[in-house]
Amino acid sequence: MEDAEVFFGKDAYARHTGIELLEIGPGTARVRMEIREMHENSHGTVHGGAIYTLADAAFALASNSHGIPAAAINASISYMKSARGGSLYAEAREFALNPKLATYTVEVTNGDGEKIAIFQGMVYRKSPRR
Amino acid sequence: MEDAEVFFGKDAYARHTGIELLEIGPGTARVRMEIREMHENSHGTVHGGAIYTLADAAFALASNSHGIPAAAINASISYMKSARGGSLYAEAREFALNPKLATYTVEVTNGDGEKIAIFQGMVYRKSPRR
Amino acid sequence: MEDAEVFFGKDAYARHTGIELLEIGPGTARVRMEIREMHENSHGTVHGGAIYTLADAAFALASNSHGIPAAAINASISYMKSARGGSLYAEAREFALNPKLATYTVEVTNGDGEKIAIFQGMVYRKSPRR
Amino acid sequence: MEDAEVFFGKDAYARHTGIELLEIGPGTARVRMEIREMHENSHGTVHGGAIYTLADAAFALASNSHGIPAAAINASISYMKSARGGSLYAEAREFALNPKLATYTVEVTNGDGEKIAIFQGMVYRKSPRR
Repeated sequence: MEDAEVFFGKDAYARHTGIELLEIGPGTARVRMEIREMHENSHGTVHGGAIYTLADAAFALASNSHGIPAAAINASISYMKSARGGSLYAEAREFALNPKLATYTVEVTNGDGEKIAIFQGMVYRKSPRR
Repeated sequence: MEDAEVFFGKDAYARHTGIELLEIGPGTARVRMEIREMHENSHGTVHGGAIYTLADAAFALASNSHGIPAAAINASISYMKSARGGSLYAEAREFALNPKLATYTVEVTNGDGEKIAIFQGMVYRKSPRR
Repeated sequence: MEDAEVFFGKDAYARHTGIELLEIGPGTARVRMEIREMHENSHGTVHGGAIYTLADAAFALASNSHGIPAAAINASISYMKSARGGSLYAEAREFALNPKLATYTVEVTNGDGEKIAIFQGMVYRKSPRR
Repeated sequence: MEDAEVFFGKDAYARHTGIELLEIGPGTARVRMEIREMHENSHGTVHGGAIYTLADAAFALASNSHGIPAAAINASISYMKSARGGSLYAEAREFALNPKLATYTVEVTNGDGEKIAIFQGMVYRKSPRR
């Protein structure tokens, strides 16, 4: 797999959603999304899909950080608090890494450090293409 | 709650993601997303966040169809097959409706009827604001 | 894989929990649990772990019904209503079957047909051992 | 709510499954299960329902540790590794606590500290009964 910035640069939907890569390491990643009007849902708070996409971006970066393509097969998210304005941050950490499957936890917080959502995801790891 | 089309019209992120409302009924909804380049992930297939957002749009419409504001508190999604090109469809149906909590299942399929993902979500229902 | 009754007969924890096999077909299964005092939690209703185990038994039977060993890798459950007395039933149906991964939905109801829980699970399918 | 040991003493299904309380604190709990034949599934490894029940016991103790009855409304679990013999441990920690909803993460490990499963659960908190 190519470099994380190149990998993330090819993620059209993350870019369309306004997500920025802050940090990346083996099995970890941190991303940010500055809240804009386009992120709102019908209730005027940040859309659950935008929060999920932010968490998913951190998850994709962390799970693809080992040089083996990893495809999400499952994720669950719990929303703890509505978000409005400012920025949201998502930080992924690896829970367990097996040859074929790996699991990640992602915490989403706002600029005040309040917990917005927690995300748990699993990937299926593919042998490298040659 | 206002009419479904007005409700959906205020969903900025669903619009930003290119989601259209096809059908709505009590506890059910069907939406569509025509795949464009902006929906792609780093692997060149439809981004998990875009698929989730599509499912979430059907879930939000179905859960808010009873005239009581409903906020998503939890969701899980399993991805069965990568998606490329054409359109994706999401159809939500109500599994159970209680005064405070309700649960929905959403199936995501492509234009050939192939199963792309399954989503299960729960909402917390708020007493109507007066 | 051996016959479903033999397979289920080897499931010690399902037996310990008092679960009976009612029906089995390709990708589907139906099981029952007669509620006894041993199934209660600290609040005096049926324990979430017992409800999960019931759903999981249907899931295991359905996912192992194709002659290829299938191991659960992920599941989520939403509880809609407390259960007390009588019997609980779980019915699994296959959502999608791929060579390596398959997904199942399980509904748990009580003897009055009331919805108690909904379960969604994914398995990793192993090549047959020879 | 009564004392944690009394609370746990009333949990018939946890006792039936052979779960012991090791530690309890505000929003946290640690439990153990010594693997016996009754915990096995049809593949001869520890049953997913038994692993879930162990995680759920830690989750119930942690979420009921604040003096307000908490009922599980949703949980998801990912299984990373089969377990055989020895003991399994589950440790719950609180992710976020709101007046009505709270979320917990539970890690399940074996006696060698290997990660067996990760569990994420949400409770609905009831006003104290007077």
